Amino acid sequence: MAAEAGTPTPADVYRARARIAGRVARTPLLSSPRLARACGADTVSLKLEMLQLSGAFKLRGATNALLALAPEVCARGVVTASTGNHGRALAYAARAEGVACTVCLSGLVPENKAAAVRELGAEVVRTGDDQDAAVAEALRLAAEHGFSYIPPFDHAEVIAGQGTIGLELLEDAPDLDTVIVPLSGGGLLAGVALIVKAINPAVHIVGVSPERGAAMIESLRAGYPVEVAEEGTLADSLGGGIGLDNRHTFALVRGLVDEVVQVSEGEIAAAMRGLYRHERLVTEGAAAVGAALLARGGVPGGGGRVAALITGNNVDMDAFTRLVREND
Amino acid sequence: MAAEAGTPTPADVYRARARIAGRVARTPLLSSPRLARACGADTVSLKLEMLQLSGAFKLRGATNALLALAPEVCARGVVTASTGNHGRALAYAARAEGVACTVCLSGLVPENKAAAVRELGAEVVRTGDDQDAAVAEALRLAAEHGFSYIPPFDHAEVIAGQGTIGLELLEDAPDLDTVIVPLSGGGLLAGVALIVKAINPAVHIVGVSPERGAAMIESLRAGYPVEVAEEGTLADSLGGGIGLDNRHTFALVRGLVDEVVQVSEGEIAAAMRGLYRHERLVTEGAAAVGAALLARGGVPGGGGRVAALITGNNVDMDAFTRLVREND
Repeated sequence: MAAEAGTPTPADVYRARARIAGRVARTPLLSSPRLARACGADTVSLKLEMLQLSGAFKLRGATNALLALAPEVCARGVVTASTGNHGRALAYAARAEGVACTVCLSGLVPENKAAAVRELGAEVVRTGDDQDAAVAEALRLAAEHGFSYIPPFDHAEVIAGQGTIGLELLEDAPDLDTVIVPLSGGGLLAGVALIVKAINPAVHIVGVSPERGAAMIESLRAGYPVEVAEEGTLADSLGGGIGLDNRHTFALVRGLVDEVVQVSEGEIAAAMRGLYRHERLVTEGAAAVGAALLARGGVPGGGGRVAALITGNNVDMDAFTRLVREND
Repeated sequence: MAAEAGTPTPADVYRARARIAGRVARTPLLSSPRLARACGADTVSLKLEMLQLSGAFKLRGATNALLALAPEVCARGVVTASTGNHGRALAYAARAEGVACTVCLSGLVPENKAAAVRELGAEVVRTGDDQDAAVAEALRLAAEHGFSYIPPFDHAEVIAGQGTIGLELLEDAPDLDTVIVPLSGGGLLAGVALIVKAINPAVHIVGVSPERGAAMIESLRAGYPVEVAEEGTLADSLGGGIGLDNRHTFALVRGLVDEVVQVSEGEIAAAMRGLYRHERLVTEGAAAVGAALLARGGVPGGGGRVAALITGNNVDMDAFTRLVREND
């Protein structure tokens, strides 16, 4: 794979770790003998990124991107257009550094999500009817006010920040054979693959998307970034495209990842129930796709020591409680 | 406080940590802005001991007690009579070291609890009609077979093992003002107080028991160990007496702990719901008593930086799910 100028490197992941140390949580591994039995692995370790300070791994990339800015640039403020975990993470990171943060949201975004971003001290700008309009407004505000635009995944420092998860995995479980990562825009998967493959190319790296709206997987099949129709999924954090002008994550995922797999809505729901009942974890749908894959039986790559990333817990608790009590 | 021979010391907590390193999880802190607002603290940090490998902090003490035995003594096996988290923890620790473990259970203990201990590889001996009979049988087996009897809390190495939680707190949050600890037999509270007070006597240490069956608190009031009637409580892991012949925990708690408080069943239930809804944690009742206290408003000791120990998640998930969905 030819490295485009500005493509993140394994050394960037180390730089990210030094930058974000003390500002993000170092998350633990939890062993799941149940999932190990289900898939036939020796061990399955769950990396609990829902214990990250903003409730999702996204804080790593957002914090790193913010701190990688020159101080005088950072001081002018940051802007993004994400409605989900990245928007919350950037608002959280900006507040921690005392930097102004603006999050542009379309009229489609429910008010409770906007309120959650405001609670973290960010300014919310309502604009237009869809996500494209919100992104356009974010870019316009960036140009007008000198804000730095921090996109949710296709950004070298965001990718490097998410890659710090891979470093922690290698430290805590140096003999891993397989790493299973939720896959949407590919920032997390690219970052983890970047550092893990540099240190141990034998580790089998798997990306998992829902069946519905798997933009990266469709793009890998096509050989170039394509658009897919958005569909509702329990793994709502994994929705959205990868960008037709994708700069980093498509090439990194194509070059580094061994396997991509899709799981059904029923498998995601069953995995959320299993993680609640047995490991006693509250997970959002996106966080459960790795467990959904392992519950099928068999380990991708055939190795004995597996890690799966449990990425977040930003879920509506009423809906979650209804879901886990079904089939009581 | 005069130290009885064999009473654990702060140095024993360091010895415990060296012994159990790599065999127990180093658990993370999770910040709860919600509880900080509720009680008026600057920060509330939750120490997530339910992520301990056996689902509860008890693994620390059980592992330390096992490893503190001379190798030839340890090889003869261990025995206990606990039905709850200590029994599971000792079975877990013994299996990890390849040591035979026997757990004596009375006829009162439901079969599913016995099965959980057997699943961890321990031998279950059913005997008698109550816990006293099970303890007598455990002591008899210890004498007959040369097993080492490892009681659940009133044991120097068990106390020192639980104290490693205090060391981790001091490392991760060196400026704590208040530490809130669930209180039953006092092994956890004694161990944590032992090390925290040695390093920073200004830290205000609080023990919390349910209103029902608070044997240590009644004993502190009486000035000597007393028996109390056992009553059903959501915090079932905090049931049981402290032993009329208590050797260590009564004196340590009396000498080191600043304050003890009781919380009601309604407060415990509300705290479990709050920890589920907001921090997205599954906790057993015993683990939620600190959050129950903070939800009253006001910080014991008046300090700004508070830690509360969330001790375990060994809860019946059907009952838990019913509890958290009430008042939806």
